[in-house]
Amino acid sequence: MTRKEVRVFAPASVANWGVGFDALGCAIDGPGDIVTARLSDRPGVHLGVIEGDAGRLPREPERNTATAGAAAVLASLEPAHHAVPGIEIDLKKGLPLSSGLGSSAASGVAGALAAAALLGIEDKRRLLRAVLIAENVADGSWHGDNAFACLLGGIVLVPSSDPDSALEAFSIPVPHDLRLVLVHPELELATAESRRALPKTVSLGDQVQQGAAFAGLVAALHSGDLELAGKFVLSDRIIEPARAPLVPGYAAVTGAMREAGALGICLAGAGPSLMAISRASQNPRSIAEAAVSAWKNAGIESTASIHTIDREGARLIP
Amino acid sequence: MTRKEVRVFAPASVANWGVGFDALGCAIDGPGDIVTARLSDRPGVHLGVIEGDAGRLPREPERNTATAGAAAVLASLEPAHHAVPGIEIDLKKGLPLSSGLGSSAASGVAGALAAAALLGIEDKRRLLRAVLIAENVADGSWHGDNAFACLLGGIVLVPSSDPDSALEAFSIPVPHDLRLVLVHPELELATAESRRALPKTVSLGDQVQQGAAFAGLVAALHSGDLELAGKFVLSDRIIEPARAPLVPGYAAVTGAMREAGALGICLAGAGPSLMAISRASQNPRSIAEAAVSAWKNAGIESTASIHTIDREGARLIP
Repeated sequence: MTRKEVRVFAPASVANWGVGFDALGCAIDGPGDIVTARLSDRPGVHLGVIEGDAGRLPREPERNTATAGAAAVLASLEPAHHAVPGIEIDLKKGLPLSSGLGSSAASGVAGALAAAALLGIEDKRRLLRAVLIAENVADGSWHGDNAFACLLGGIVLVPSSDPDSALEAFSIPVPHDLRLVLVHPELELATAESRRALPKTVSLGDQVQQGAAFAGLVAALHSGDLELAGKFVLSDRIIEPARAPLVPGYAAVTGAMREAGALGICLAGAGPSLMAISRASQNPRSIAEAAVSAWKNAGIESTASIHTIDREGARLIP
Repeated sequence: MTRKEVRVFAPASVANWGVGFDALGCAIDGPGDIVTARLSDRPGVHLGVIEGDAGRLPREPERNTATAGAAAVLASLEPAHHAVPGIEIDLKKGLPLSSGLGSSAASGVAGALAAAALLGIEDKRRLLRAVLIAENVADGSWHGDNAFACLLGGIVLVPSSDPDSALEAFSIPVPHDLRLVLVHPELELATAESRRALPKTVSLGDQVQQGAAFAGLVAALHSGDLELAGKFVLSDRIIEPARAPLVPGYAAVTGAMREAGALGICLAGAGPSLMAISRASQNPRSIAEAAVSAWKNAGIESTASIHTIDREGARLIP
């Protein structure tokens, strides 16, 4: 049964985990984006009200990820569905923009899932291409790590974000006592700049070690061994070393977090926020406080929060 | 309690599995190498009798991997042990040389484990450096994938083979119905030549996909999903494409194996032998026959065998 109006919540997500660059993401608890979508007699996808973005998001439906997500779902339908008149979308941003928390992915996923609900599509995995396309609208790159994690929940491995390939996302077990500490400095780092810092090529030897560390991270998560998972996150020799110089205070803050017991630390997405892997029983709050204090000593204000993994992903809400 | 004479069996092993190049190995059932080691009054490690190598292996103790393995164990001891008079080693080769079956690793591991047994060292993980050093004697490169798998048994992930780093090997669960089909053509391909064919650098995009495929392979083995494991083995875009042209008949043979139901196929180690991933219940023999037949059509004789994973690794035998 289809409905005339639906509301969807899409959680924040964190991509990369160091050695899982562009191929690992997780959804996290806390605030997210909310899309309200309704069937409309006006063909196509239209944007209604946007709240919480301080006027910064594009209003054109083809450039806004929420409407782009819905439009991609519409475009993916069999001809039989083409009688669908149109969809109007309201977006309530719960996530800050450019924060490393998958803000654009959350809007795109919420838009896509809301459109799917209106159209009676229940299998989330049919939406992978739509949410990848929506994410592409945000910055022109192809990466499904945030969007697939936001859509499906949990920790997901994304073997390929090539829009011309078969898209898949594999759920990796979530150790029950895993906590992520996220620290957001008052710094700006554009994703494009953070990508430009990366090497174009890597040596075969570095490729082997980076791939083995990623495989080790996944094995450690399967085994529930958070110490080991953290160690593999820290062994990133390609991405993190290239980006660390773009983040003032990086060395001091990550050092303080490690001293406070962080098992692994990496940039959240493209940064500048940092993510630490910790254990519920090992006082993640002290890691958060150590980070904020270290950044303050470097003259930079920051805020920190502690998260569990959101296992459900994007979902309909009343 | 230490003994005056011990016998050690060390199994064959297969490294790489495509996307796990230089970082994944497994021990397999079937023939292996056997070392008999005895305490001797003559200081140092000495080579006694070698059988089964048709006179091809070096007789100098520092160039033979079996004696090099034993010598590396001796050299790793605390000074308290320096009273050990000496060790004499006999080697019975059960594995063909340069076959992609970890022949040099098996001799090195057998030598190291035999020396350890004579010296009362029971923890195999204390021998990782010794077996890495022994393997290095064979071809001058540093890679622990064969040797660690041969030593520990099962499927092992080797994050680093850098002799200056901490050496570790992580056991990956073995799906109970996994069978490996190994096909050995009457072709020669020197490991050094096979290494020279590899690119020195890879693009960051290829690095990401190769690493994700390796992580996916490990996740699939953890989940016992052999179809998925095979798919990730097949997605190698760096190693296998560079080496395939060195193996006459590669395309025809791998094509025939896939048609016969192989879930994944890759070169065994540096080749020219091929390894297929299959399931006990899916008639691995037909994959073996298809491979031998396809190679015959290309004018090349070959033999094939079907294996389970040896979960125990190198061990003392009566």
